Amino acid sequence: MVKATELTGTTTADPGNPTPTRLHNPASRGFASDNCAGVHSEILTALALSNGGHEASYGEDAYTKRLQGVMAHHFGPDTEAFPVFNGTGANVLSLQSMLPRWGAVICAATSHINIDENAAPERVGGIKLLTIDTPDGKLTPELIAQEAWGWGIEHRAQPLVVSITQSTERGTVYTPSEIQAIADFAHARGITLHMDGARLANAAAHLNVPLRAITRDVGVDVLSFGGTKNGIILGETIVLLTKEASAGLKYLRKMNMQLASKMRFVSAQIIALMEGDLWLRSAQQSNSMAKRLSEAVREIPGIKLTQEVQSNAVFATMPPAAASKARERVRFLDWNPVRGEVRWMCSFDTMPEDVDNLVAILQESVGSCQNEIHSVGEPAIVS
Amino acid sequence: MVKATELTGTTTADPGNPTPTRLHNPASRGFASDNCAGVHSEILTALALSNGGHEASYGEDAYTKRLQGVMAHHFGPDTEAFPVFNGTGANVLSLQSMLPRWGAVICAATSHINIDENAAPERVGGIKLLTIDTPDGKLTPELIAQEAWGWGIEHRAQPLVVSITQSTERGTVYTPSEIQAIADFAHARGITLHMDGARLANAAAHLNVPLRAITRDVGVDVLSFGGTKNGIILGETIVLLTKEASAGLKYLRKMNMQLASKMRFVSAQIIALMEGDLWLRSAQQSNSMAKRLSEAVREIPGIKLTQEVQSNAVFATMPPAAASKARERVRFLDWNPVRGEVRWMCSFDTMPEDVDNLVAILQESVGSCQNEIHSVGEPAIVS
Amino acid sequence: MVKATELTGTTTADPGNPTPTRLHNPASRGFASDNCAGVHSEILTALALSNGGHEASYGEDAYTKRLQGVMAHHFGPDTEAFPVFNGTGANVLSLQSMLPRWGAVICAATSHINIDENAAPERVGGIKLLTIDTPDGKLTPELIAQEAWGWGIEHRAQPLVVSITQSTERGTVYTPSEIQAIADFAHARGITLHMDGARLANAAAHLNVPLRAITRDVGVDVLSFGGTKNGIILGETIVLLTKEASAGLKYLRKMNMQLASKMRFVSAQIIALMEGDLWLRSAQQSNSMAKRLSEAVREIPGIKLTQEVQSNAVFATMPPAAASKARERVRFLDWNPVRGEVRWMCSFDTMPEDVDNLVAILQESVGSCQNEIHSVGEPAIVS
Amino acid sequence: MVKATELTGTTTADPGNPTPTRLHNPASRGFASDNCAGVHSEILTALALSNGGHEASYGEDAYTKRLQGVMAHHFGPDTEAFPVFNGTGANVLSLQSMLPRWGAVICAATSHINIDENAAPERVGGIKLLTIDTPDGKLTPELIAQEAWGWGIEHRAQPLVVSITQSTERGTVYTPSEIQAIADFAHARGITLHMDGARLANAAAHLNVPLRAITRDVGVDVLSFGGTKNGIILGETIVLLTKEASAGLKYLRKMNMQLASKMRFVSAQIIALMEGDLWLRSAQQSNSMAKRLSEAVREIPGIKLTQEVQSNAVFATMPPAAASKARERVRFLDWNPVRGEVRWMCSFDTMPEDVDNLVAILQESVGSCQNEIHSVGEPAIVS
Repeated sequence: MVKATELTGTTTADPGNPTPTRLHNPASRGFASDNCAGVHSEILTALALSNGGHEASYGEDAYTKRLQGVMAHHFGPDTEAFPVFNGTGANVLSLQSMLPRWGAVICAATSHINIDENAAPERVGGIKLLTIDTPDGKLTPELIAQEAWGWGIEHRAQPLVVSITQSTERGTVYTPSEIQAIADFAHARGITLHMDGARLANAAAHLNVPLRAITRDVGVDVLSFGGTKNGIILGETIVLLTKEASAGLKYLRKMNMQLASKMRFVSAQIIALMEGDLWLRSAQQSNSMAKRLSEAVREIPGIKLTQEVQSNAVFATMPPAAASKARERVRFLDWNPVRGEVRWMCSFDTMPEDVDNLVAILQESVGSCQNEIHSVGEPAIVS
Repeated sequence: MVKATELTGTTTADPGNPTPTRLHNPASRGFASDNCAGVHSEILTALALSNGGHEASYGEDAYTKRLQGVMAHHFGPDTEAFPVFNGTGANVLSLQSMLPRWGAVICAATSHINIDENAAPERVGGIKLLTIDTPDGKLTPELIAQEAWGWGIEHRAQPLVVSITQSTERGTVYTPSEIQAIADFAHARGITLHMDGARLANAAAHLNVPLRAITRDVGVDVLSFGGTKNGIILGETIVLLTKEASAGLKYLRKMNMQLASKMRFVSAQIIALMEGDLWLRSAQQSNSMAKRLSEAVREIPGIKLTQEVQSNAVFATMPPAAASKARERVRFLDWNPVRGEVRWMCSFDTMPEDVDNLVAILQESVGSCQNEIHSVGEPAIVS
Repeated sequence: MVKATELTGTTTADPGNPTPTRLHNPASRGFASDNCAGVHSEILTALALSNGGHEASYGEDAYTKRLQGVMAHHFGPDTEAFPVFNGTGANVLSLQSMLPRWGAVICAATSHINIDENAAPERVGGIKLLTIDTPDGKLTPELIAQEAWGWGIEHRAQPLVVSITQSTERGTVYTPSEIQAIADFAHARGITLHMDGARLANAAAHLNVPLRAITRDVGVDVLSFGGTKNGIILGETIVLLTKEASAGLKYLRKMNMQLASKMRFVSAQIIALMEGDLWLRSAQQSNSMAKRLSEAVREIPGIKLTQEVQSNAVFATMPPAAASKARERVRFLDWNPVRGEVRWMCSFDTMPEDVDNLVAILQESVGSCQNEIHSVGEPAIVS
Repeated sequence: MVKATELTGTTTADPGNPTPTRLHNPASRGFASDNCAGVHSEILTALALSNGGHEASYGEDAYTKRLQGVMAHHFGPDTEAFPVFNGTGANVLSLQSMLPRWGAVICAATSHINIDENAAPERVGGIKLLTIDTPDGKLTPELIAQEAWGWGIEHRAQPLVVSITQSTERGTVYTPSEIQAIADFAHARGITLHMDGARLANAAAHLNVPLRAITRDVGVDVLSFGGTKNGIILGETIVLLTKEASAGLKYLRKMNMQLASKMRFVSAQIIALMEGDLWLRSAQQSNSMAKRLSEAVREIPGIKLTQEVQSNAVFATMPPAAASKARERVRFLDWNPVRGEVRWMCSFDTMPEDVDNLVAILQESVGSCQNEIHSVGEPAIVS
């Protein structure tokens, strides 16, 4: 029988790549998503420093303990922080912890939990979503009222959580007072407030306020706080802002397959992002690149911005043929082909020259497709 | 209002740690679990090389593509590899993909899926486990027959998968022919075979056979292949060995919150582990340290090995008072306090001096607790 | 200690009702719902005849066997019939049997599965509903197209079933060719077609066609066929019209807690309903009463019909104060208080004098509330 | 096109059975299960009396209101009663209402929830069962202690409910003090106590105590109270004995598809069973027939009772060939063919001559199969 050692000798030779090498071009950057970007160098440094020796697993390590203090610094003294793997995990776990088995969630029809998470809230969480159409991805008390009714009626899944996204999936940002109004409306009805903060840093950077000014201070009960889209490898944090809003998260995290055994490496990244101002520098960078891009494309005939640019996303309509032509040279998303809408997403590592290059490509593409008519197609699924 | 920039200035000052630093002692190593160990330096190098620029997300990247070839090299040409976050995710996803909604899984009572995953198989997977007591964590056709019956009877969850662990949670290893016998028994009854290979590398190293000799070549249909316990940050791979055994894994991975957006960083680690012989070197190291430890403790009066040492785990009974005393100086687990059983787990980075140090501590502890009687307690939960 | 016999002696005395008696007024009939009606006398006769002696349980009895033939007579030779307890059970079971774990259902926003079943499809079935707004409760290929996209994209729950209701929750009826068009559109995309036929008899009676003309002959794959709302105690039947559309229903019925042990008593009722023409006589009666009612209220100033009256339901707007006043004398539902819409539902036992009495009450109520303005409120939940 | 009326004309003619008729022999009675028996005539009378006119649906009717008082009479003033369709529904709903999402249930390996409900507790309830082997189907504090541990450990589903069956699936009966000891043990650990009382009446009749003496008075928190096996068509009642033990049952019943629309007909049956002493007369009859049977078969050489006969079930071993021969003439179950164990179950309508006839058949069968050896087979699934 071939021995394991012989086989692995072969392995080394056959795929031909015993030494780790790059399989991609590190100089190429696009506008498809902020999760196409890599990792900030400070994160890798922190990761290396957290390595070596043995540390307790499953969150009993020194890094996860420190993370509690770091998050309390941002969100206030009684917060509890639960690192998980990804945003879908953070959201579905948060919602389960906030709801009894018969509870439902009111959310925007465009919300990530409704559009981008397959049926994770429904199938893993057992949760019905009561969705509401919005012009810009933002809920208001008036909109929420459409679904905030029926308590005590057993035929209706009980609306007990409102979930909002900050910044929204449409790139818009809630002001502190808008969130407060939603929280007041919700709490007055026994509803608690969840925030999907996958891009919370971008919202804070746009508003130029501390993180707690758009979360705890304005009534958010449970927060899914994003790291991955702001320059770490992976890691989101469920932040409990009011203890009574949540129960059993510890058990739910394990049961929902979101408990990292070597949690020190997740927590060390989040600490590196949040302890200093890396989170803010990175968000400011992606926001300012989106601003630069929006100001330039606004000048291109045939391209029309469709949403306020308040974070790191730019939405616009443009001739589909021009969009297709441009995408041959740089990646970005067809958001809604039916109406010819595209999305350009900036990242922590987007550079002014990346933006300028995209603008030039768009100008050329639009120029060469002047007479095209819109084709029809289907909405994009993005995250 | 305080601005975000001012706050982060404060942040930097207040927790007092703007530059990333170590929060733990990198020279300290114990025997609690192989997931207390850190990351092999080759992994960190590979991680850094996979960084930079933009790469497609959600598995469309060059690293995840390369991973297919690497896994095919080990497991055969028709395999498909799905990286996920952790072992519980790999197991619960695999089982869902192998079963209709009414399917049940036959497994050892000591299996990780039954003991260490809270109720993830039941609640997230909707799967009933039909558990069987074993002396050593290993199933046999005879044992499986206890639960392999009742097809067509609607009152009984239909037994359609057998799941075995290699190496087992008790540190024992199935031989290729033992696995083949189980596969033959199962397949003859329309049952498919899942293997939890969280420590498959240790089994292959012990048997000195290629990975496929204890998986595909002997009838395993779907494999949860472990990386985390063998020296990477995180990352397990579901390996489909027979296509007909599995369906919809792509959708299930997303729906079960196990789809990494920046998957390149997970795949790059697994490639670094598996493309050369790092996986084997690491497993050989942990195995040999367990062997060294077992040979030494066997000589200590009052300590009695309870399982064959065939991988990186050593199980033994010892006076509980002595165990408690020893644990003040080095970490290891109370496996079953009722019978005074402990577990020492070796890792890829366990050094001979670590073992010798543990042995010395155990000798002293046992010596000073000669007259102790066994206390009673409860089984440990470990992973 | 008090003996059981003594206690039961007391029981008989204390609630004061040892002999079974009526607790309700059997002469009172309203318009709240067809499930407020009782049971047709022919059903009670059949029930009594199925009693006595021992019969095999769980569907192995002679009545459930006969039911297969009765249903095959109505729906064609290759049908399979599975009696269950109620409509929600029939729907959620049907959908599970038609879908893989990652499948989603396209349905009208007003559908019973979306509005009236709490979160049973989501939580028990693990199924995401993709809902579509309609003017009259009816889907069309054009409307379905809004959600029929995204196959192969793992972020999206896969749309693999369309579910329509016949007659709809708004009292309207699909023509055979409308159903055929939906089936063709669906099947061309790999989608199967489910029909919630809780009131299928009313639709057939309205169209004056056999049941198979609006089910099997026009492409319906799986049918939830209603009995409860057409005059039996309880009992719905899942009818499989194309075998390949469904799997494991036998196991799912038990697992989903819808398997009657003494099934003979459920099947005997459905046989009594379906073997002769009782189903049709009953549906014709409730339909004709709705027609009589709609023609009369149409003449009342201030009352305006909002939907075509094609089955046993009448929807109309009227001044809320008048509706409240009328409800003091006869029961009916506030369908949507926001727009002052009410629902009157006729049953197999609704008599012309019941209708005439309601009309008189409405005339008086509207007359005495002429100057009222509409109040606002919330939508009703009804079944 | 054929009109509906023409078709139904054909229907009447074709299956040939327009008038409801008997499809079974009402004089035939066996020993397979108490759910093969029919319905007591007093139940049918009550059902007919509850018919006629319109009554509020979904439990707002006069019968379901009266049921509250009837159950309070038996179980004490603060009980709440929720009628459901069947025993699996009652059990899985009860357990969900008693547990958070991460809770587990300690139960006997032979319990109906583990053996006879497919994977309903796991898949519909999301609940892990921690099963314990017993000699006679009865748990004790000592046995429960095997699984009552691990609170606070996230890797372990939290044991928060103990479920016992009275009378047990093995025909044995807990004394009041045995239940009290279990309740005390459980409550001291924050565990609540569920009782599956599908045959509670038989236990009360055997002990000659009121129902509350073996439920509320000895610490049971939530009860699944059985009617179906004691002579009604269908209908079990979840009885909440301590309010704090349960939450959201109203919503869970609907969500779990156990809410009868025409609930008056379920409640009227349970009232008829429980308001007088019908429940007790019926249970005494089935118990006494089991006693008569056990005393007779005890005298037959080759037949050996395997469990105490304390309710309406008799378990015994006998030569399999003899059992097969006997079953050609009267129905009863192979309980465990591996050890040649059979079950004879008596019902409310079992007559002395039925027992005597069975005994005669068994005597003949055993006599003619004296030299047979035991065959092997698989355990039966029964309910």
